[in-house]
Amino acid sequence: MGRITEELAEFADSARGTEASERMMRLSVFDWAACALAGADEPVARLVRDMVREEGGAAQAGLVGAAARVPARAAALANGAVSHALDYDDTHFAHIGHPSVAVVPAALALAQKTGADARAFLEAALVGVEASIRVGIWLGRSHYQAGFHQTATAGAFGAALAGARLLGADGAQAVGLVSTRASGLKSQFGTMGKPYNAGIAAANGAEAAQLAARGFVSTPDGFDGTQGFGETHGGSAARDALDGLGRHWLFEGVSHKFHACCHGTQAMIEALKTLTPLDPATVRGVTVLTHPRWLKVCNQPAPQTGLGAKFSYRLIAAMVLAGRDTAALATFSDAACVDPALVALRDRVTVAVDESMPETAARVIVETATGAAEASHDLDAPLAIDTRAQRLRAKAESLLGPGRAARLWESCMASEGPDPEALGATLAGLGLTEEA
Amino acid sequence: MGRITEELAEFADSARGTEASERMMRLSVFDWAACALAGADEPVARLVRDMVREEGGAAQAGLVGAAARVPARAAALANGAVSHALDYDDTHFAHIGHPSVAVVPAALALAQKTGADARAFLEAALVGVEASIRVGIWLGRSHYQAGFHQTATAGAFGAALAGARLLGADGAQAVGLVSTRASGLKSQFGTMGKPYNAGIAAANGAEAAQLAARGFVSTPDGFDGTQGFGETHGGSAARDALDGLGRHWLFEGVSHKFHACCHGTQAMIEALKTLTPLDPATVRGVTVLTHPRWLKVCNQPAPQTGLGAKFSYRLIAAMVLAGRDTAALATFSDAACVDPALVALRDRVTVAVDESMPETAARVIVETATGAAEASHDLDAPLAIDTRAQRLRAKAESLLGPGRAARLWESCMASEGPDPEALGATLAGLGLTEEA
Repeated sequence: MGRITEELAEFADSARGTEASERMMRLSVFDWAACALAGADEPVARLVRDMVREEGGAAQAGLVGAAARVPARAAALANGAVSHALDYDDTHFAHIGHPSVAVVPAALALAQKTGADARAFLEAALVGVEASIRVGIWLGRSHYQAGFHQTATAGAFGAALAGARLLGADGAQAVGLVSTRASGLKSQFGTMGKPYNAGIAAANGAEAAQLAARGFVSTPDGFDGTQGFGETHGGSAARDALDGLGRHWLFEGVSHKFHACCHGTQAMIEALKTLTPLDPATVRGVTVLTHPRWLKVCNQPAPQTGLGAKFSYRLIAAMVLAGRDTAALATFSDAACVDPALVALRDRVTVAVDESMPETAARVIVETATGAAEASHDLDAPLAIDTRAQRLRAKAESLLGPGRAARLWESCMASEGPDPEALGATLAGLGLTEEA
Repeated sequence: MGRITEELAEFADSARGTEASERMMRLSVFDWAACALAGADEPVARLVRDMVREEGGAAQAGLVGAAARVPARAAALANGAVSHALDYDDTHFAHIGHPSVAVVPAALALAQKTGADARAFLEAALVGVEASIRVGIWLGRSHYQAGFHQTATAGAFGAALAGARLLGADGAQAVGLVSTRASGLKSQFGTMGKPYNAGIAAANGAEAAQLAARGFVSTPDGFDGTQGFGETHGGSAARDALDGLGRHWLFEGVSHKFHACCHGTQAMIEALKTLTPLDPATVRGVTVLTHPRWLKVCNQPAPQTGLGAKFSYRLIAAMVLAGRDTAALATFSDAACVDPALVALRDRVTVAVDESMPETAARVIVETATGAAEASHDLDAPLAIDTRAQRLRAKAESLLGPGRAARLWESCMASEGPDPEALGATLAGLGLTEEA
């Protein structure tokens, strides 16, 4: 088999996380669960969940937002789509992907199916997200720029390896098999296809791991071999992708979202917020400077739907200047797209490119009657883990209310890790209604 | 939405087949069913069927080789893999894909789910296979040469459109949605991944059609738009792909296999057979001339498994010269790969390229002690429909025995078309055991 496949499989099978990486994984499971619960009533969430409930089947794993159990693959599909419905979940900028929405639903579903304990679930999720980031780096920017959605593509490999760990399956076979099934296009952004991409990654990973456990024989170098996934999907085969694998956890550098819109817009928001409050009427023009790669992602100049608004530098800049709460889900509405005050401000925003800027940074220049002010922000700037935990708890509180957020926190911070069944019960919505 | 998507959706929704295209579809359903029944005990068939049976769920559609009903998507997955397990099903050379194994399982499963009649099933299958061929031509040779398995990729679109017709769903949405999920690599050839590719195409198409019927909103130009499936998967966007769509049925040009190995080797076998019988001991050397595109498909020089043998010009040439029956499944065994007589003959076979030859043709030169003999064959040479029907019945008889073949024939030739439930019962194996 391919060297890359072999190393990934060995890593997924036996690696042990560090204290820091495991703490970050807990925070991401917590944040993933908060986003999933908050998104459980979104149209795409209802639609995919209704479909898997109609299909029904063996009661292997739980669903977010319904007290029903379905086959693990189906739970992974629905919960992946549900948890990405709000686009509010974590992101890793090394490959530009959302690791948790593809990997955690697969790991949770297979942990429930196999009766795995909290520790096994946490470890599987951690090796899965780390593997997805490494795969994403190996596929590289050429893959992303070609049009592939790393969340879905790299995510499927992470989900397959997390599943292989839980099932004791041959990880290289799971990788070889998911190579012929991993998919997901960025051109779906702004539609239900984007969250669905996370669901298919989780489901494909779960299915590949289960088939590998049954003895399926695929091409062992289907990922990194001749005409394998990498070669056929614009992969750059980055040589350093696996450097330090198992010793250094790239997942520790994951970003969490504190605004309910595309990750590419978060640095701009943080930068602009340092210049507010100001009187929107005095704003003559705003220039947003960003790395060129974001232009195809989140530069919808005049979005017409709440979903589109999440991918619009111009409208979001207008929202920040107008003092709207970009952390709140309701801010990104169809109505906001035609709000005369926002549209007038939006039309004064120009998006420009600064090649010299890191992809995690943005710079803004606001010209008013009295002169120009400038600010910048880099999402890669260190955020102490305790500060991060605090901000994530605050985010969960605003999404779920303080009672539910507290209960979720408790479940994710339990001594051994988040218990799959206890977490599943919380996600089903059991016992939460009295406070919701 | 894109023009191509729009035309395909309209075609799939309303086209009516000609008498000739419908007759060919019946023959292909018959041949598909014979291959599926004959392959029902293959390891990959058992493995995928066992998985969907363990998942269980709503009794929407039947399985090949088991008296069980599962959700339509699951039936499409299993039956797609089962029916391609032997690699004995039909092929269309316009795009180089196996249309029926991707489309028929999806159409049959959704016909069963919706209680569609024989006519509706036949029409859905026909528009589905035709659409998959057109999609395959639009994607083009660049797509296939890049490493994509047209059976799986183009097949998923055909399956989605067949499903949309049966469900009365928005075909353009089904196409837009399956654009982010269609997948399948040729590098899986020679492993269980190849038949699995047919299953995932059928399952992805069935799921996309069902989600479209539920109101899923994907990118309507996700197939032919910017960074859509075509652009991201080496598609050539062939301008003439849809010429005559709905009037001229390319499916009428489908090829059926009369030897139990890769379609790329069939022309060589037919050519060699015209030079037999001869005494293998007198053979000094054999030259097989073929179009260069087949070298990556079926030129395994020294296969080690029965599955690999099906993709080996050299070993298959040896089999023909040694008088082995290439129509029989048992000929392609692990043992044949190490059979000293075959290996000795195999080592005298040289495969060479002739750029001037059509992809459907092969030329062979056999040198013996007494001189050289030459023969060629083109699979595109006309085959009268009655001769084809006769050869397909003979093939089914050798696969299933005369009783089962006759019953299957009767079911596929019923006046309105093959009844989905009656065909499903035959495929489940009901009432067949007394003669099997």
